[in-house]
Amino acid sequence: MTSSTDLRKTDLRETVESYWASAEARDWTAFAETLADGVVYTLPQTRERVRGRETYVRFNQEYPGDWHVRIERIVAEPGQVVTWTHFTVGLEEMYAISFFTGDTEGRVTSVTDFWPEPYEPPAGREHLVERY
Amino acid sequence: MTSSTDLRKTDLRETVESYWASAEARDWTAFAETLADGVVYTLPQTRERVRGRETYVRFNQEYPGDWHVRIERIVAEPGQVVTWTHFTVGLEEMYAISFFTGDTEGRVTSVTDFWPEPYEPPAGREHLVERY
Repeated sequence: MTSSTDLRKTDLRETVESYWASAEARDWTAFAETLADGVVYTLPQTRERVRGRETYVRFNQEYPGDWHVRIERIVAEPGQVVTWTHFTVGLEEMYAISFFTGDTEGRVTSVTDFWPEPYEPPAGREHLVERY
Repeated sequence: MTSSTDLRKTDLRETVESYWASAEARDWTAFAETLADGVVYTLPQTRERVRGRETYVRFNQEYPGDWHVRIERIVAEPGQVVTWTHFTVGLEEMYAISFFTGDTEGRVTSVTDFWPEPYEPPAGREHLVERY
């Protein structure tokens, strides 16, 4: 027996795993199935927004570069999932952090992505940190 | 009745809420109480690492600027929590995303922080996105 809370939790986590697996496989039919009709994608760093399943699938389909993605970490609770993913494009490596929300059927209703870039550490804290 | 799974979940989420509230209040005693002795702090963008409670409290205490922080979103499961926080330093605004892990007593054993910066959107996708 599973409570409805547990069921929703499992569903959205599995949906998000399928979202990334189908993106990696360029299986845009399976990718579209993870999304609610009215899905909203938001990039706070560029202040861009994409609305609706069809447009959002196209946004991903048209994304340039031979990128590959794997999930580094996933954290899920009912209705909300976060992934930390590792992207490679040729020799370039990047991280993305994505906040997902879902509907009661376990489909993705919103994705908010962050793409943090490497930077030089500020001076003055060398006595407390090590580099790796 | 609460299962031990639910209890651990509640604990780490509450610990993380206290972590941010005590940082905002500059209450370094309360902040230290949220941390396990061997806490490890990692900044993948600068490849910096801070080890141990005492050093990590000092790292935060010595952090320059009159910064203020509030939680924008929190996602928790047993043993793992993610926060999306909003920082202000004077007129400057920033986001941070922090991945926490905890021990069975609900203390923070690791924090991995990301600090994404604004950037200009790449050309070629204006037909799919709106700006906000």
